[in-house]
Amino acid sequence: MPDHKYVYFFGKDKTEGNATMRNLLGGKGSHLAEMANLGIPVPPGFTITTEVCTEYFENQQQYPEKLDEQIAQQLAKLEDETGLKFGDNSNPLLLSVRSGARVSMPGMMDTVLNLGLNDKTVAGLAEEVDERFAYDCYRRFINMFSDVVLDIEHKEFENILDAKKKELGVENDTELDGGALKDVSAKYMAMVEEKTGQDFPQDPMTQLWMSINAVFDSWNTPRAIKYRKINGIPGDWGTAVNVQFMVYGNMGENSGTGVAFTRNPSTGERKFYGEYLMNAQGEDVVAGIRTPHPIETLNKEMPEMYAQLDDIKERLEHHFKEMEDIEFTIQQGKLYMLQTRTGKRTAAAAVRIAIDMFNEGLITRNEALLKVDPEQLDQLLHPMIDPNEKVDAIAKGLPASPGAGVGKVVFTAEHAEEMTEAGEKVVLVRNETSPEDIGGMHVAQGILTARGGMTSHAAVVARGMGKCCVAGCGAILIDEDAGLFTVNGHTVKEGDFITLNGTTGEVIIGQAKLITPDISGDLNTILDWADDVRTLGVRTNADTPEDARAARDFGAEGIGLCRTEHMFFGEERIPIVQDMILAETEEDRKAALVKLLPMQRSDFKGIFEAMKGYPVTIRLLDPPLHEFLPKHDELMEQYAKLKAAGDTNKIHEIKDLIKRVNSLHEFNPMLGHRGCRLGITYPEIYEMQVRAIFEAACELVKDGYEIVPEVMIPLVGHINEFKVTRDSADAVAKQVMEEQGVELDYMIGTMIELPRAAITADEIAAEAEFFSFGTNDLTQTTFGLSRDDAGKFLPYYVEIGILENDPFVAIDQDGVGQLIKMGVDKGRSSRPDLKIGICGEHGGEPSSIIFCHNIGLDYVSCSPFRIPVARLAAAHAVLKKGE
Amino acid sequence: MPDHKYVYFFGKDKTEGNATMRNLLGGKGSHLAEMANLGIPVPPGFTITTEVCTEYFENQQQYPEKLDEQIAQQLAKLEDETGLKFGDNSNPLLLSVRSGARVSMPGMMDTVLNLGLNDKTVAGLAEEVDERFAYDCYRRFINMFSDVVLDIEHKEFENILDAKKKELGVENDTELDGGALKDVSAKYMAMVEEKTGQDFPQDPMTQLWMSINAVFDSWNTPRAIKYRKINGIPGDWGTAVNVQFMVYGNMGENSGTGVAFTRNPSTGERKFYGEYLMNAQGEDVVAGIRTPHPIETLNKEMPEMYAQLDDIKERLEHHFKEMEDIEFTIQQGKLYMLQTRTGKRTAAAAVRIAIDMFNEGLITRNEALLKVDPEQLDQLLHPMIDPNEKVDAIAKGLPASPGAGVGKVVFTAEHAEEMTEAGEKVVLVRNETSPEDIGGMHVAQGILTARGGMTSHAAVVARGMGKCCVAGCGAILIDEDAGLFTVNGHTVKEGDFITLNGTTGEVIIGQAKLITPDISGDLNTILDWADDVRTLGVRTNADTPEDARAARDFGAEGIGLCRTEHMFFGEERIPIVQDMILAETEEDRKAALVKLLPMQRSDFKGIFEAMKGYPVTIRLLDPPLHEFLPKHDELMEQYAKLKAAGDTNKIHEIKDLIKRVNSLHEFNPMLGHRGCRLGITYPEIYEMQVRAIFEAACELVKDGYEIVPEVMIPLVGHINEFKVTRDSADAVAKQVMEEQGVELDYMIGTMIELPRAAITADEIAAEAEFFSFGTNDLTQTTFGLSRDDAGKFLPYYVEIGILENDPFVAIDQDGVGQLIKMGVDKGRSSRPDLKIGICGEHGGEPSSIIFCHNIGLDYVSCSPFRIPVARLAAAHAVLKKGE
Repeated sequence: MPDHKYVYFFGKDKTEGNATMRNLLGGKGSHLAEMANLGIPVPPGFTITTEVCTEYFENQQQYPEKLDEQIAQQLAKLEDETGLKFGDNSNPLLLSVRSGARVSMPGMMDTVLNLGLNDKTVAGLAEEVDERFAYDCYRRFINMFSDVVLDIEHKEFENILDAKKKELGVENDTELDGGALKDVSAKYMAMVEEKTGQDFPQDPMTQLWMSINAVFDSWNTPRAIKYRKINGIPGDWGTAVNVQFMVYGNMGENSGTGVAFTRNPSTGERKFYGEYLMNAQGEDVVAGIRTPHPIETLNKEMPEMYAQLDDIKERLEHHFKEMEDIEFTIQQGKLYMLQTRTGKRTAAAAVRIAIDMFNEGLITRNEALLKVDPEQLDQLLHPMIDPNEKVDAIAKGLPASPGAGVGKVVFTAEHAEEMTEAGEKVVLVRNETSPEDIGGMHVAQGILTARGGMTSHAAVVARGMGKCCVAGCGAILIDEDAGLFTVNGHTVKEGDFITLNGTTGEVIIGQAKLITPDISGDLNTILDWADDVRTLGVRTNADTPEDARAARDFGAEGIGLCRTEHMFFGEERIPIVQDMILAETEEDRKAALVKLLPMQRSDFKGIFEAMKGYPVTIRLLDPPLHEFLPKHDELMEQYAKLKAAGDTNKIHEIKDLIKRVNSLHEFNPMLGHRGCRLGITYPEIYEMQVRAIFEAACELVKDGYEIVPEVMIPLVGHINEFKVTRDSADAVAKQVMEEQGVELDYMIGTMIELPRAAITADEIAAEAEFFSFGTNDLTQTTFGLSRDDAGKFLPYYVEIGILENDPFVAIDQDGVGQLIKMGVDKGRSSRPDLKIGICGEHGGEPSSIIFCHNIGLDYVSCSPFRIPVARLAAAHAVLKKGE
Repeated sequence: MPDHKYVYFFGKDKTEGNATMRNLLGGKGSHLAEMANLGIPVPPGFTITTEVCTEYFENQQQYPEKLDEQIAQQLAKLEDETGLKFGDNSNPLLLSVRSGARVSMPGMMDTVLNLGLNDKTVAGLAEEVDERFAYDCYRRFINMFSDVVLDIEHKEFENILDAKKKELGVENDTELDGGALKDVSAKYMAMVEEKTGQDFPQDPMTQLWMSINAVFDSWNTPRAIKYRKINGIPGDWGTAVNVQFMVYGNMGENSGTGVAFTRNPSTGERKFYGEYLMNAQGEDVVAGIRTPHPIETLNKEMPEMYAQLDDIKERLEHHFKEMEDIEFTIQQGKLYMLQTRTGKRTAAAAVRIAIDMFNEGLITRNEALLKVDPEQLDQLLHPMIDPNEKVDAIAKGLPASPGAGVGKVVFTAEHAEEMTEAGEKVVLVRNETSPEDIGGMHVAQGILTARGGMTSHAAVVARGMGKCCVAGCGAILIDEDAGLFTVNGHTVKEGDFITLNGTTGEVIIGQAKLITPDISGDLNTILDWADDVRTLGVRTNADTPEDARAARDFGAEGIGLCRTEHMFFGEERIPIVQDMILAETEEDRKAALVKLLPMQRSDFKGIFEAMKGYPVTIRLLDPPLHEFLPKHDELMEQYAKLKAAGDTNKIHEIKDLIKRVNSLHEFNPMLGHRGCRLGITYPEIYEMQVRAIFEAACELVKDGYEIVPEVMIPLVGHINEFKVTRDSADAVAKQVMEEQGVELDYMIGTMIELPRAAITADEIAAEAEFFSFGTNDLTQTTFGLSRDDAGKFLPYYVEIGILENDPFVAIDQDGVGQLIKMGVDKGRSSRPDLKIGICGEHGGEPSSIIFCHNIGLDYVSCSPFRIPVARLAAAHAVLKKGE
């Protein structure tokens, strides 16, 4: 039996690995091998596998027995291919050592270059090339090696270098000649030996082993462990180590180095895109001391090199069927590829590249669909801060609703409306928003709140409006009386401009430049393809005819959640709603409801009209009644004012109101008197709503519309709650249909948003005709976590890796997801054709959508602006099934 | 094939039913048959089965085909046995018709007596007995029949009778002679015929059928349906109808009637207990116009009858092995038994009867145990209102903590303490209590709150203290400033006496007489027997050494829940706790914690000492921090006062405090920053607590104690939360043990109180060494129901039958129970020897305890005063297993 293989060679013709071996050889190693296989010139070398890393940590940092033997063999091969000797005093083989895990991972040891140099070999190199080059390499090697292997701080080296430049009166490193660099190298060496109390390793083999150790050890530094925890990367994946022949772009005017993308990563245009510098090393391109040239210029400067590079670019794209991000070095007229990997791109570019590659015959439609990240599409639907703009954030909150907004700071909704009428653009800044702020939120360019989470009122409403929002930005301290807020030492006054980035959560002083990407044609193509593939329906959450129309334009196939309470907040309605709540008798309450009826009816007519031919699920009143009343503190203030003014009449009135508000106070409103609990204790409210729905539907049916209303009863926890409210709704529906002489098909179903509902879904489905998972509330109750209060610990949980994701963003599949699955399975066990959807915020989040598809839901419902995301994610769900 | 049998005879020797046929013949019918089988004289008759009732409603109120035939046959048998003819004009057979379901059920038609009388037969009866007797029977029959069959209001008859008495100038019915009663009968008849517009049925057979119809129809009246819904009685059980030969206790001085218990139902003493009246009907015994004699007197008055009755009593007890509640009638020197059923009894009587019957060899120990209702035991442990006392409640709240209390009304905890020091007994009346009220609650005789549910602060603390509490009594309106509360038109001032009945929830004006039952010897015997049988452990929830000792006295086998937060509320501690919370830096917080450490350590020492040799589960800090700070409104008041006084120094302080209180405000504190979420964000708090636990344990171990601390981490929803807090606790434990040079066995486990914890119990059990189900919070989250806010609809839910029980009282087995079962099964799947208990309020409720036993829990934990209940219920669980 041959020995287990721990080291894989790559080079001109003895390459042992390939791109499929990513898990064993890491991303960098497997791609270097793949390029070598394709005949693309890479500096030869070998990869020590990730298995070695795993064994190393399993065996108290001992390497596998045969490792040194295998490394020695591969090193000999490398000497063979390069014709150089490692440690040779006249023309030494020099190496780079780099880590390379399956996925790129910050916090790992990166690179040691020029390994193999010592006091003797450097002299040989000086002889072979020139003194300056040799000692420049040497001082860089001592610095890098000492930094990453011996743990000497980089600034110690800076100090020596700065002293030398001062001594010689020069400004740039490039102005130091060979002698100066030789002196610097000697001083580096002395300093390191003093710090470590040991000789600097002169033996190249020792240097190599120490570097390999350092790479492996860096896999388990606290920083790397924390990163893995946060990103869910298993510790036993390990990292590979790549040992590679050094090539130099700084060996004179026929040398150079560059980075490029095979297409434009910003627009997706099919055009080679990158930059390079002649007589330079990689770090010089990045450092920005010299300005790099665009890649096209190379065609003039070194046409042969350009032609080779262009050819390689084409081969890489054809081979990987991807837009690639490459690094290359030209050493004295010879081209080497140092790296190739999938290129990062903007959403616009992703869409265009996918379509172009399909049109070029490079990939199939399905492959094209998978090339676009659904989440990324969101960028295309909102204004964004120009990526070329450099902005400084003064604070960071939660990225509650994507896009960007610029405007003058205002602190009240009224003021927002006034200033907007006066032609100003405003950003509304509040501790938290409440339904009375809707008007101001509607006109604002963006909303910034100090409190509340990803599903706070501000966040939910803003997302519904497609407006940017930064929520729960605890660092801002609002002083409304003084008309300012302070944040991290800055003071921002009412009327000052700020910019919000709702995609990142950043708050920026001043007016950043915004852009609105426009690729509607390409986007539509991708979405049409997605529609052909997906089986999951996509509906929208919409409460107004405007939202409904916007959602239709984005491709919504119905309304999955129409929240009737939002209709109660109109300016002319809220006093009637309050009359209804404050009514002392059922009669008074009914009188107020009679006034609301025509308004609700016209709401529903508008929505049915907008969604003509598509199903509309209407949820009966859900929130606790106190949400419609003024806040206790506001009333107390009014009371104080009235008392000061001696207005005894009104005092009496407000005292009554305060009493009622107090009596409706709830300790935990989320778990209080809401949903069907209201419908059961005040049946006349639901009766009015059902009447409005059916009167609207009947009137439109007479006008030739086809309408199948879906009435949804919220917060059912026990089958009997459903039965009681369903029976009452059925009775009203029947009565209206008789009155109107119209026969309607309709469905009555329920939200599944409490654990108990999921657990008893079989009982509930025996009566309910559809389910819609309210995953916001289901997540709150399953975790016992108030989304509005979680800001104090949930971000920290995600940061330290207790939770992989915010469960209000992506469905917690192991917990909440299990309840959903139980709800689906039990529900279908008693009603096989049960229609099931989801209408929580998760309905617009790709990983959640895929989960919904996999457990057999019929549709997802999300805010209008998330519909394109949902359509594509639903297609991905089909294409990835079984993965 | 013989026809299906619908009617069963009972009588001297042709009896067809027996006691095992309760479902078919109802309770009354099956017991009449059983007595007949035993040779005990019962008036003969027959029972129409419950099946007839069910078929009647299934077939649009049509009777089974052969029913009239079978009734005719049985009637013939009855005529045979009695030698009388139904409808005979000279000496008619008269009948009673009564309903009789499986369980007794109010709202059903009860009785029609003297059926078979009409204008002709009454004349025959007058001939046979005497005129007064005959027309007294006749007018009673017309009244009863018209009331229950023809739906004529009873007061119509009252009016006629009153008019007659007025006319004759007499006061009592008994003063009316035969002629007067004949006239009354005629007037009754005329009135009924006028009201119904129909002739009164003169045909006895018609009367019989109409009465049978009326009994069956009464099964489905709204009142009966509602009662069944509330009590979980299926509608298809149906009722039986008993048709029986009429016997009369008012046929002269050798006739009489009485009711009796075979033993004293109040004390359990083995002594015939009852009363009777000569020459009277059953209703006269109840009506109270004549004073009945004690049953013993019968021995003098009619020794032969008494001897027969005493013999029957003995036979019934031996036969049913029960204390029986009997009715009898003596008709002209002949004894008839009208009914026998299990006698209701006080808790004290139940215990004594069970033990006596065992000692008499009548029943086994296990049968004796099953004769005592665990829930009833609770009566024995608290003072109660003398059952002989007649009290009028002015309001009813939730029966939050059993027992009774009498005292003067006070509205603040401070005042309660002052008045108690001054030697007064007080009842503390508050809108809601908070931890600062503990002192006042401790000295009060009882606690009354206007808000909050069965597990509100007041309720939980009161139960822990074994003190009576009426909670959530919404009808009372407290005006603290005026020093009074109003309720349903009454005004109660500070200093007025009130009485609370925590067992029923009643609030009573004045001082009711209280009694404390004392049967500790018998109770201990029963509990010792229960301990022999039960396999479920019984622990207590206790937070102080006093509670722990009290619980030990009641038989607790350890502490299942020691809530450390209660220790933070001591007078000298709360300022330090507040310092800790208000600390701006970790240093300041640690400084405050250092001060708390010795206090916590001495708490734990006291508890470990009290529970020497028994396990103690200590829960780390659970509630949100704002619970330890003053309330916002209180601070605002202080602020206003300071501002008025111009005290700028203190204003600054209080403004800071207000700011901090505001920043800690939570929308839904139940779902907020509490439990292990606190322990993770402020690890130093848990570290201090764990240090205190282990220092206390180590010190006591040095003194020779054996201690195995169980550290319980609250509110775990995700395994990673447990891991982080467990690792930190482990580290502190190890450190303390090293410092102290002591090796301790200890366990670290968790509460399972969130749905997600139950769903992922397999993952959690892989790390946690024990589970304790926190069913209060688990019920809240599973139902999405805040126990403190549920008062607005939960009582209504139970009233109209949406929920069978308050899920905070008895475990909701179909919902919450399924999650618990899942938690147990998944938990044991990854750790087979996982120790599992329950520490929610349900741990002291019998049906929940039986559930816990059946799903395999190791122990229940409840407040000290529920421990006897739990011990007995746990024994019942074993004895009833498989039922």
